[in-house]
Amino acid sequence: MFDTIIIGAGFAGAVLAERLATQRQQRVLVIDKRQHIGGNCYDCFDQHGVLIHQYGPHLFHTDNKQVFDYLSQFTEWRPYQHEVLAFIDGQKVPVPFNLNSLHSLLPKSLADSLELKLIDRFGYGVKVPILELRKINDKELKFLADFIYEKIFVNYTAKQWGKKPEDISAEVTGRVPVHISRDNRYFQDKYQAIPAQGYTKVFQNMLDHPHISVMLNTDFKDVFKLDLETGRMQFMQSEFTGQFIFTGLIDELFASRFGELPYRSLAFKFEHLSSQQFQEKTTVNYPNDYDFTRITEFKHISQQVTPGTTIVREFPQDFERDNPSRNIPYYPVFTDENKQKLDRYLAFAEQFENITLVGRLAENRYYDMDDIVARALHVFDARFASPG
Amino acid sequence: MFDTIIIGAGFAGAVLAERLATQRQQRVLVIDKRQHIGGNCYDCFDQHGVLIHQYGPHLFHTDNKQVFDYLSQFTEWRPYQHEVLAFIDGQKVPVPFNLNSLHSLLPKSLADSLELKLIDRFGYGVKVPILELRKINDKELKFLADFIYEKIFVNYTAKQWGKKPEDISAEVTGRVPVHISRDNRYFQDKYQAIPAQGYTKVFQNMLDHPHISVMLNTDFKDVFKLDLETGRMQFMQSEFTGQFIFTGLIDELFASRFGELPYRSLAFKFEHLSSQQFQEKTTVNYPNDYDFTRITEFKHISQQVTPGTTIVREFPQDFERDNPSRNIPYYPVFTDENKQKLDRYLAFAEQFENITLVGRLAENRYYDMDDIVARALHVFDARFASPG
Ligand SMILES: Cc1cc2nc3c(=O)[nH]c(=O)nc-3n(C[C@H](O)[C@H](O)[C@H](O)COP(=O)(O)OP(=O)(O)OC[C@H]3O[C@@H](n4cnc5c(N)ncnc54)[C@H](O)[C@@H]3O)c2cc1C
Ligand SMILES: Cc1cc2nc3c(=O)[nH]c(=O)nc-3n(C[C@H](O)[C@H](O)[C@H](O)COP(=O)(O)OP(=O)(O)OC[C@H]3O[C@@H](n4cnc5c(N)ncnc54)[C@H](O)[C@@H]3O)c2cc1C
Repeated sequence: MFDTIIIGAGFAGAVLAERLATQRQQRVLVIDKRQHIGGNCYDCFDQHGVLIHQYGPHLFHTDNKQVFDYLSQFTEWRPYQHEVLAFIDGQKVPVPFNLNSLHSLLPKSLADSLELKLIDRFGYGVKVPILELRKINDKELKFLADFIYEKIFVNYTAKQWGKKPEDISAEVTGRVPVHISRDNRYFQDKYQAIPAQGYTKVFQNMLDHPHISVMLNTDFKDVFKLDLETGRMQFMQSEFTGQFIFTGLIDELFASRFGELPYRSLAFKFEHLSSQQFQEKTTVNYPNDYDFTRITEFKHISQQVTPGTTIVREFPQDFERDNPSRNIPYYPVFTDENKQKLDRYLAFAEQFENITLVGRLAENRYYDMDDIVARALHVFDARFASPG
Repeated sequence: MFDTIIIGAGFAGAVLAERLATQRQQRVLVIDKRQHIGGNCYDCFDQHGVLIHQYGPHLFHTDNKQVFDYLSQFTEWRPYQHEVLAFIDGQKVPVPFNLNSLHSLLPKSLADSLELKLIDRFGYGVKVPILELRKINDKELKFLADFIYEKIFVNYTAKQWGKKPEDISAEVTGRVPVHISRDNRYFQDKYQAIPAQGYTKVFQNMLDHPHISVMLNTDFKDVFKLDLETGRMQFMQSEFTGQFIFTGLIDELFASRFGELPYRSLAFKFEHLSSQQFQEKTTVNYPNDYDFTRITEFKHISQQVTPGTTIVREFPQDFERDNPSRNIPYYPVFTDENKQKLDRYLAFAEQFENITLVGRLAENRYYDMDDIVARALHVFDARFASPG
């Protein structure tokens, strides 16, 4: 019947379905528990006709020409260069912190002096982690490092991960850069663009193939059984001997035998306003004020002309598997203990010859969209490209 | 695994899935060959953010309170009273033809005289078939009947069914009414409204149940086999002993054993315009001019405020099963021969105890949306309401 069953209709699942159907003439079934395809990249029009991203703003950017060309088979693009502001001391300034942010926030004399020092030490156009700044024996540069750390990072990170600021490791946030530049863009990748008709349309085009079936609103556990001892698979109560590609939570596939992997979740509060525009740029971060981390205004992405505008506030929250308003695992939580668990799962997975784990949840890794497309294309080449 | 498999995610399939899951706690699988739920009632936002009806304009209207209450569980409504104009002799006048149309098209003296005669003979507010007008021994009323027949009906009907005007039976079109009224509305039903968030959202809400799975992009013939001799059913190569509800083409289910039933298809040509508004009302019919039958402007339905507007022209065309641009069966073609075929199919279907045929295609009947919801609710009560 089906040669391959894929769990998850996000980029990991969709790329592999498309490749297997078009390149290997396989019959593929994609199963997702959501009511729609696209995974976290799903976008749709809200009731006011504004194209929103239901699981948070997704901005495509890549330096990988192969990925860009591959996706270009399924969509036209609209050029889009993402900019993010942070609300600091009552002003909105570009982040990552750059020379423009410096001049907006600090008094002229200090800003001028810091700018000269930064360019002199590191060169123009360079990204320097604040950890590096701190290492230099210079009071002003240390001040700058502390200022950025305090004003832009520590409280944002604390909100994001639900920790106290004092429990944030300075090591980790020390990696955040100062961009010695007047380039206000959030990314510097060569290919930055938005699918002209939205992300969901890309997925529709990828999956629109006579050999691909899509089963929605279906938790894989309800139709599929894996016997962890024998490796035997059952689909709808019959033995299944084809390939099984899994892009869901790795611990869920293996019945949490090594314990649950923790995640961080988000609550998205959407609001439609009757004004034409709410804020200057797509995303404004609120590191220090309010309980949300950021506000995104979607019209900047879709470039739509509509009388009103839709925004979303993001409230980080704990992930709870059995609580419908908290059960979406947005971000893996990385700790040494979790890393060990994950390694056990990945080693355990090796023994199942016909099972492939790929994706943000299945590999418990933070992949951007281009990363996961590249990863899925790689997995296809490595495991499925040649017959037999 | 699944208690019931339903083919088709239009109203017939969705109502039965919802009832079986919520009232009988069944596990239900709904299969559709399209990429989306909603059948012909599917709406979606086009790339300009205008909510369009992909398979032609759908206006909900009913006198059936039970149907209206049932659907109100799944949606809020926006009041909407449909009006249609016909482009006649260079003017746009209300249809069904009424006293306003009369005064717009005919010279004052004649219109005044006809109005008096109509009210006098039939009373105000009455709908009179033009066949009735012809029967009366009055030159002016006969003229009116012929005028309406020629200007409004015969060419429209000819386009619609791909016939020559002279081959249209005057009998059939004689049933079209004159509405002796100044009520310009197309329908007079008590409940006329549009789902506040569109039709597709209604289907999402109906099917959003933990016991309902939806399999899209899947022709039932690829996953389901019915042995016409033994009545045995196979789903994904295993025997299936549950209930099978079919809302697709009846002749397709029975391998065209009594011949194919003919249908009429449509080509929809969508166009987005940069102007705010294209025409005065939702739909304008073109009985005599051009090759399309009508133009619909969707913003009148969605009441959206957007800088541009999207319209669709409908070109009737032959139905061809193997031609992807002509393979949607929009309207059954009723002839005596087809009626006999259909009866043979329906009689044949009787023998399959676990198979239920319901819907516009499966019963080869023209059902409006409220009719099919009523029909599906009835089928549920009659066949599935009590534990079996
Ligand atoms: C808030 C946020 C913002 C982001 N912004 C960006 C951005 O700006 N740019 C960028 O490049 N990337 C961004 N990303 C990353 C992007 O979302 C991922 O790269 C991408 O979604 C990964 O694809 P995937 O297929 O691995 O996972 P997913 O998209 O998560 O798909 C996995 C699918 O598996 C399904 N599934 C899970 N469990 C089951 C089950 N039990 N049964 C059936 N189905 C199941 C899920 O429903 C889901 O549809 C962002 C991510 C988040 C969370
Ligand atoms: C142009 C047009 C305009 C209309 N306007 C109105 C209106 O204004 N008001 C009103 O009340 N009604 C209107 N209707 C009628 C309305 O569309 C129907 O009442 C309604 O769609 C009937 O629902 P259904 O479930 O029987 O059929 P459908 O909505 O046609 O659903 C049947 C489903 O079965 C699926 N299917 C078929 N074959 C297979 C297969 N082999 N494998 C898998 N799936 C299959 C199809 O893809 C489809 O999704 C209109 C109809 C048309 C054609």
